[in-house]
Amino acid sequence: MSNVLTVGVIGAGRIGKLHVDNLKLIPQIKIKAVSDVVVDHLHDWATTNEIDVLTTNYSDLLNDGEIDAVFICSPTNTHAAIIKEAAQAKKHIFCEKPVSFSVEETHDALKAVEAAGVKLQVGFNRRFDPNFKKVRELVQTNEIGQPHVLKITSRDPQPPSIDYVRASGGLFMDMMIHDFDMARYIMDSEVVEVSAQGTVLVDPAIGEAGDIDTAIVTLKFENGALGVIDNSRQAVYGYDQRLEVFGNKGVATADNCIPTTVQVSTSEHVVKEKPLYFFLERYTQAYVEEVKEFATACLTDQPVTCSGNDGFQAERIAKAAKESLLSGRPVRLEESYVTNG
Amino acid sequence: MSNVLTVGVIGAGRIGKLHVDNLKLIPQIKIKAVSDVVVDHLHDWATTNEIDVLTTNYSDLLNDGEIDAVFICSPTNTHAAIIKEAAQAKKHIFCEKPVSFSVEETHDALKAVEAAGVKLQVGFNRRFDPNFKKVRELVQTNEIGQPHVLKITSRDPQPPSIDYVRASGGLFMDMMIHDFDMARYIMDSEVVEVSAQGTVLVDPAIGEAGDIDTAIVTLKFENGALGVIDNSRQAVYGYDQRLEVFGNKGVATADNCIPTTVQVSTSEHVVKEKPLYFFLERYTQAYVEEVKEFATACLTDQPVTCSGNDGFQAERIAKAAKESLLSGRPVRLEESYVTNG
Amino acid sequence: MSNVLTVGVIGAGRIGKLHVDNLKLIPQIKIKAVSDVVVDHLHDWATTNEIDVLTTNYSDLLNDGEIDAVFICSPTNTHAAIIKEAAQAKKHIFCEKPVSFSVEETHDALKAVEAAGVKLQVGFNRRFDPNFKKVRELVQTNEIGQPHVLKITSRDPQPPSIDYVRASGGLFMDMMIHDFDMARYIMDSEVVEVSAQGTVLVDPAIGEAGDIDTAIVTLKFENGALGVIDNSRQAVYGYDQRLEVFGNKGVATADNCIPTTVQVSTSEHVVKEKPLYFFLERYTQAYVEEVKEFATACLTDQPVTCSGNDGFQAERIAKAAKESLLSGRPVRLEESYVTNG
Amino acid sequence: MSNVLTVGVIGAGRIGKLHVDNLKLIPQIKIKAVSDVVVDHLHDWATTNEIDVLTTNYSDLLNDGEIDAVFICSPTNTHAAIIKEAAQAKKHIFCEKPVSFSVEETHDALKAVEAAGVKLQVGFNRRFDPNFKKVRELVQTNEIGQPHVLKITSRDPQPPSIDYVRASGGLFMDMMIHDFDMARYIMDSEVVEVSAQGTVLVDPAIGEAGDIDTAIVTLKFENGALGVIDNSRQAVYGYDQRLEVFGNKGVATADNCIPTTVQVSTSEHVVKEKPLYFFLERYTQAYVEEVKEFATACLTDQPVTCSGNDGFQAERIAKAAKESLLSGRPVRLEESYVTNG
Repeated sequence: MSNVLTVGVIGAGRIGKLHVDNLKLIPQIKIKAVSDVVVDHLHDWATTNEIDVLTTNYSDLLNDGEIDAVFICSPTNTHAAIIKEAAQAKKHIFCEKPVSFSVEETHDALKAVEAAGVKLQVGFNRRFDPNFKKVRELVQTNEIGQPHVLKITSRDPQPPSIDYVRASGGLFMDMMIHDFDMARYIMDSEVVEVSAQGTVLVDPAIGEAGDIDTAIVTLKFENGALGVIDNSRQAVYGYDQRLEVFGNKGVATADNCIPTTVQVSTSEHVVKEKPLYFFLERYTQAYVEEVKEFATACLTDQPVTCSGNDGFQAERIAKAAKESLLSGRPVRLEESYVTNG
Repeated sequence: MSNVLTVGVIGAGRIGKLHVDNLKLIPQIKIKAVSDVVVDHLHDWATTNEIDVLTTNYSDLLNDGEIDAVFICSPTNTHAAIIKEAAQAKKHIFCEKPVSFSVEETHDALKAVEAAGVKLQVGFNRRFDPNFKKVRELVQTNEIGQPHVLKITSRDPQPPSIDYVRASGGLFMDMMIHDFDMARYIMDSEVVEVSAQGTVLVDPAIGEAGDIDTAIVTLKFENGALGVIDNSRQAVYGYDQRLEVFGNKGVATADNCIPTTVQVSTSEHVVKEKPLYFFLERYTQAYVEEVKEFATACLTDQPVTCSGNDGFQAERIAKAAKESLLSGRPVRLEESYVTNG
Repeated sequence: MSNVLTVGVIGAGRIGKLHVDNLKLIPQIKIKAVSDVVVDHLHDWATTNEIDVLTTNYSDLLNDGEIDAVFICSPTNTHAAIIKEAAQAKKHIFCEKPVSFSVEETHDALKAVEAAGVKLQVGFNRRFDPNFKKVRELVQTNEIGQPHVLKITSRDPQPPSIDYVRASGGLFMDMMIHDFDMARYIMDSEVVEVSAQGTVLVDPAIGEAGDIDTAIVTLKFENGALGVIDNSRQAVYGYDQRLEVFGNKGVATADNCIPTTVQVSTSEHVVKEKPLYFFLERYTQAYVEEVKEFATACLTDQPVTCSGNDGFQAERIAKAAKESLLSGRPVRLEESYVTNG
Repeated sequence: MSNVLTVGVIGAGRIGKLHVDNLKLIPQIKIKAVSDVVVDHLHDWATTNEIDVLTTNYSDLLNDGEIDAVFICSPTNTHAAIIKEAAQAKKHIFCEKPVSFSVEETHDALKAVEAAGVKLQVGFNRRFDPNFKKVRELVQTNEIGQPHVLKITSRDPQPPSIDYVRASGGLFMDMMIHDFDMARYIMDSEVVEVSAQGTVLVDPAIGEAGDIDTAIVTLKFENGALGVIDNSRQAVYGYDQRLEVFGNKGVATADNCIPTTVQVSTSEHVVKEKPLYFFLERYTQAYVEEVKEFATACLTDQPVTCSGNDGFQAERIAKAAKESLLSGRPVRLEESYVTNG
């Protein structure tokens, strides 16, 4: 492989376009082609971004010998099939989360990737946030000793549309899956048991769509530690993304990021800035870092930071959480899908 | 009743002496008598504190017509019986937490109190901490809207002795009971379901003594909200006492208190003060406030801030948590002891 | 001397009464007598506080053989004369700041104290604030290395009455004198040069009364370091009391104190508590500490923490600042009054 | 003019290369040419950056009809002459600070710019920092009322080389000039008087080179407010860049920026991150913003955010500060150079 990675992007919705913006910042990457089910509205955008090929058929990308890697940014229910095709076409793959709504499908897709010997990175962007990376480092270097308790708070500033909720796979698969991945990333230990509490407090329409909007999930890790994640679909003060690892030598906390350090004190109150509004603001740099690291992994044949197995394990936890919520009891991961490969 | 409250203190261990120190700061209170099972070592202390009567028989206090109220600071397994006797003797009662290790015994004691028409305040000192009071006010005044999620972190700086652990009633009854009370106090809503996770990570000897040292408990409230409490018997950086209420209009957080605001920046790091070390430092003022409010309630015939029922409900939650831990499933409070009176 | 210090208080205005409240908290102190120019309104107060003697003649206190020490809380223009008389009567002396409006008078009073061999402590209460003590310790233990720059911000929440302003000796002598003392206390080095800027921005009436309400004063210390103090008579958000020492190994900062750690985030803003409102709230504990340390110094014959010379030096700096403001140029302390004794 | 701004960069040292990196991020800008006194080592760099022309003669850039604007990043003593030539060549000009070491030269250069009708932006990058912009907005929107006191702290993490010190024009002209500009920017009022204190505490070699390394300068503004700036050439904990505006309705503060929000509490201490190390880290985005705004100003014929007069006024204040330091008295700006044009 040369020292330039030629990529194609499958799906040019919000996240696909975001990746295009970030890929352009990386000198070693050339974006050659973009596909989407409809492309009529994308011609100007493609020209501005110097994208040579715009097509409604993603197979064009897979069949293009110049393309080294594809970014799968299409709807979740298409991911697994495209991964398999891309693997067969010997393309490296960056796939948005979750890999699929079904751990079985995800498992099959991963087998195809393994068989083809290509790289697969899953888009858990938060791993690339400098705050969370720093906490992980502190755990890895034993600064806080043996971890005992992990706490993650993750709240969106506003709920998605009800249409989105219906197709999302549910709060655990769509939203808390990020936190399940973060839990494994920070603790470097597998989750063995999940106990979920969930309810509808933000918007009854979310409940009518079959989902919850507020949840607390406790985790047991293989290393004996406990964890707890709380999610809400609506924090009116902005994107609330904090975590804390408590160990026998201390505690490390990562707080929200704010746009400026400015503080104003008046006769009424002392006011600080609200957290950065949402993921585009909070994880701006993380989105750049994840594609930069993917490019480096492909070009230098190194392991990716967030593998297909990482995607698979997060889905297993999400599935177990759903089972726990429905059954009203803790669910052990081993009860859930187990790979036999 | 006059405008002075004459009190007797039953039990002159650490907490009994602490109450004596604080009672002396309150002009309306006169401490007349102290009892303990052994008093030989207490004569000088009693003289210094101008305590007239020092006795090994707490009945002397109950039979003293001048004494208006007693502080029960003896071991937990004696509380219920003394409460009943004190109530019959028409003394107002301040009782340390927990009221007893058995919700049945507590229930009986409360009935005696009710029958006698005396006041009973339970020593949940944290209700009187200005930080937590402020959070409660913010909830009550609807500043953060309808509460959705309550989070409490409560970690001691060091575990008690194994002897203490054995007699303590266990982490839920001895330590997390404070947080169960805090949950009800902040949310102004009863807990209806408890789901407990617990383990031994701090010291195997605690496990051998039949207890846990690390726990996460999730709560469901009658008002539909969720809650989560995490406890550890050992936070090496000091007493970690924080909470947060998240609602549909915002979030209120109470952070740890620190001895000074001083911050030092050097070539190595930026250092702030550690939290106040333990309850004597953190809740100094809260201990004064609770006895001050008790005195006022007795002298002006007003309701106490933390009633016998508050003690009873916290014990019910602790009991349910223990059952959840043992059974590995959520426990509804209604499964636990229900008063029929 | 016995192990009880019997004291008299001269002047029962706001600060005199504050000292009485604090003296009562100290077991080794007995308050025997209080004098004021008018005492008719004080009888109930004296009774409640178990003060035996209430008189309009402070000489009664000086002539009372049982009284070991006096607290001089009368108007500043009476301090020097009373100090001299008290010294001759062999009483230890606690005197409110400033000792006088005239460095000559102060110098004479100190000579009388020295001749009598009694103790004199000046009421710079801020030395006893735990935040500033901590910063001093960090300097003394070389944590931040050789100090290069000291910065003090000191702003009152509201200006005093115009009558008070007229009799106060001016901003430098009445208000910034605390900061001049703090500068010497923190830096452990004498001030050798002062350069003052001052203006009237808060209230024109303050200017009409011959004073300023906003000032910035730069200092040069004997050890080569620089300093800067800024004062305002009105900070609408509360008492602003911060300082910072910058050295060749780091910087130490002391921030404002707040009533609780509670923070509220809503859709509008993130709000923290305002600083403690004024000196009674901020320096509550410092006022207790200063009289406690004075009592200990008297009873154990140790040096006081804030001596007559400390009072004298702060006045010299205040006088030099006034001269600098009037002359529009830096003033060296040696140009100002020099003791020849 | 087209909708692309073609630029040339004069001087390819550290700051010149930084501007090239940032200019490349701006779609409307094309960098055509770079000049430096020596270019042998720059060929690869120019190729990588797709720069067509690399020359030792900056006149080549001025004579190039395609070039719309030049960035003057050469040594300060060449700025004024190049500005005049560039103005005559009808190029828009972005010039690094300071414009020159002589207010007379700067004045002449500005007259040439005015005569030519081209734009001139001076590189006071800190105006584009989001924290300071926010404070300015708060002042402009009257959130803190009428400003009374401005405080700026500005400390570099390490001193420049002694060679740099010798050629720098001195601390006031090289370093504090940023703060003089910031003072005018925040307060929107001219400085009328300056009083400077300065000394050598960091490194005697700086003193031997005729400069100071530690300084406190007080300012009087035309609007009646006071200001104070403190500078040090060495803060071992990193780049210390804070400011505060105190007004009659409140105070606004801008604190240092930190790489992450992570905090670690151990048995020893509670540690936060140090400030971002130096200007490249702290003002990364500000450097991008300033060239972006310059491009927009040129392409849309709008006024620049930081004009030639802004550069001139900052130099006048720096010159007055130097005079104050040397004379040991306050210096009024009107004593300093006054334009007669």
